[in-house]
Amino acid sequence: MNLLLLHPEDWCDDGVAEISGRRYVHAEEVLKLSQRSGECRAGLLNGAVGRGIVESVDAANQRMRLRFVPEQEPPPPLPLILAAALPRPLTLRRVVHAAVTMGVKELWFYQSWKVEKSYWSSPMVAEENLREQIFLALEQSVDTVMPELHFQRRFQTFVQEDLPRMSAGGELLIAHPDPAAVPCPRGLSGKTTLVVGPEGGFTPREVEQLTAAGGTMIGLGPRILRTEVAVPVLISRLFDGVQ
Amino acid sequence: MNLLLLHPEDWCDDGVAEISGRRYVHAEEVLKLSQRSGECRAGLLNGAVGRGIVESVDAANQRMRLRFVPEQEPPPPLPLILAAALPRPLTLRRVVHAAVTMGVKELWFYQSWKVEKSYWSSPMVAEENLREQIFLALEQSVDTVMPELHFQRRFQTFVQEDLPRMSAGGELLIAHPDPAAVPCPRGLSGKTTLVVGPEGGFTPREVEQLTAAGGTMIGLGPRILRTEVAVPVLISRLFDGVQ
Repeated sequence: MNLLLLHPEDWCDDGVAEISGRRYVHAEEVLKLSQRSGECRAGLLNGAVGRGIVESVDAANQRMRLRFVPEQEPPPPLPLILAAALPRPLTLRRVVHAAVTMGVKELWFYQSWKVEKSYWSSPMVAEENLREQIFLALEQSVDTVMPELHFQRRFQTFVQEDLPRMSAGGELLIAHPDPAAVPCPRGLSGKTTLVVGPEGGFTPREVEQLTAAGGTMIGLGPRILRTEVAVPVLISRLFDGVQ
Repeated sequence: MNLLLLHPEDWCDDGVAEISGRRYVHAEEVLKLSQRSGECRAGLLNGAVGRGIVESVDAANQRMRLRFVPEQEPPPPLPLILAAALPRPLTLRRVVHAAVTMGVKELWFYQSWKVEKSYWSSPMVAEENLREQIFLALEQSVDTVMPELHFQRRFQTFVQEDLPRMSAGGELLIAHPDPAAVPCPRGLSGKTTLVVGPEGGFTPREVEQLTAAGGTMIGLGPRILRTEVAVPVLISRLFDGVQ
C-alpha cells in the first residue's frame, strides 16, 4: 500500500476519516502508524492525493481516525481503453490489477470463440467482486480514480456496437500474434482502444470482423506472451512517453 | 503451450521422442493430436524449433511418440541480465515466467534490507523447483533455450562482487521509483543489467552502494508498480526495438 485510500463512508461528522479492517491492519502493522508518529500518504476516492495524519487509535476495536490534508491531483490517467477477451478468473484479477496500476480507466472483457464459456460463471465476473482488487491497485499506484469495468458476453454486440462507439475519434489497435501484424507502435498520447485476444487467439472470422470495425493488427514479434504479461508489455510500449 | 518442448531424455533409440505426463495430456486434450492428424510446433531443449509429427499414440499408457523436423533457430535472446530482490514465492514464479517468456537468459535474485528473510526458506528458491515454471515459459514463448538462474543471499556480495562482474562492458540500470531517477531509457540493443528492488524499495545505503557500483537510477513516473508488473513494463520499454 503506497497510498491509504479513504472512502466516502469513512467520514465522520467531525470531518475526520475512520478506517478499520484491512486498512487498519496495514496502517498499524506495516506502516507502523501510531498516535505519536502517525502520518502517511493518503488519497480521497476519486479525489486528491495528500497526507493522512493520525488523530486517534482505538487498538481494542481496531479503528484509526485520520485527518486528511489534500496536496495534489492524482497521476494522470492513460488515454487508453483496454478490451481483453475474458481470461480465466485468476488471470482476470491480475489483468485488472496490472491495467489499473498503469492508469487505465476503462476496461472491457468480452466473449470470443476461444474463451471457455465456464469463465463467465465465475463470481469474479462482476464489478462489485473486483472492487477490492481495484482498491488494492489504486493503493499500489498512488492513484485515487476508480476505473469503469464492462463485461460483454456477445462478441457480435462487442464488435458491431461497443467497439465502434468506444473507439470513435481515436485509434483502434488489435493485438494479434500474427506474422502479418505491424510492429506495436510507440509514443502514443492520443485516445487509443487496445483489443487483446484470448489465449488461443482470434478465429479468422473474428480477425475479419475486427478489421472491418477499423482495427489495425499489431504484434510483439515471435514470442507469444500470456495475457497478464502481454497487457503491461503492450501498454508500456504504446505509451512509452507517458511517465 | 505454443511449442512442445522435447527433452534429451525423451529420445528413444530409433531417433523418435516419446512424451508422457503433462505434455501428453496437453498434446492429446488441447492440441487434439492423434495418429491420423498429428503435427504441432515443437522444439529441442536448447536447440532448434520445428515440427513434431506423431508416429504413434499409446492412449492406454498415456504415451505419444513423435518425429522431430527442425526448421529454424529459436527467437533471439534479450541481451539483458535481470536481477530482482527476492520477492514472495508466488511472485517469484510469476517474475520468472514473465522474464523467461520475454527472452531473458540470465536471472538473479538477491537479498536486500526490505526482503523478508522467510522468503529464502521457500522451496521455490532453488533452480530445480523453478524448472517446471521455466519449461512452461519456454513452451509459451516458442523458445527452447534454458535461462540461468542465480540466488545471492548476501547483498554485500551481490553489490560488490556479482554486480560489477555481471555488468562489465554494458549498462547498469537500477529501477528505483524516486523523483531523482531519470526516465526509463528506450531503444536499447546492447548488453544491459537491470536491477529491480524489493516491494518496499531500497534503503538510502543500498542506493549509495548501487550507485557506487556504477548504476544509473531509472524511473517509470509517479505510479508504483508491483514487481511482477514492473518487470515486463521495464523490459518492454528498454528493448522496444526488439521484436
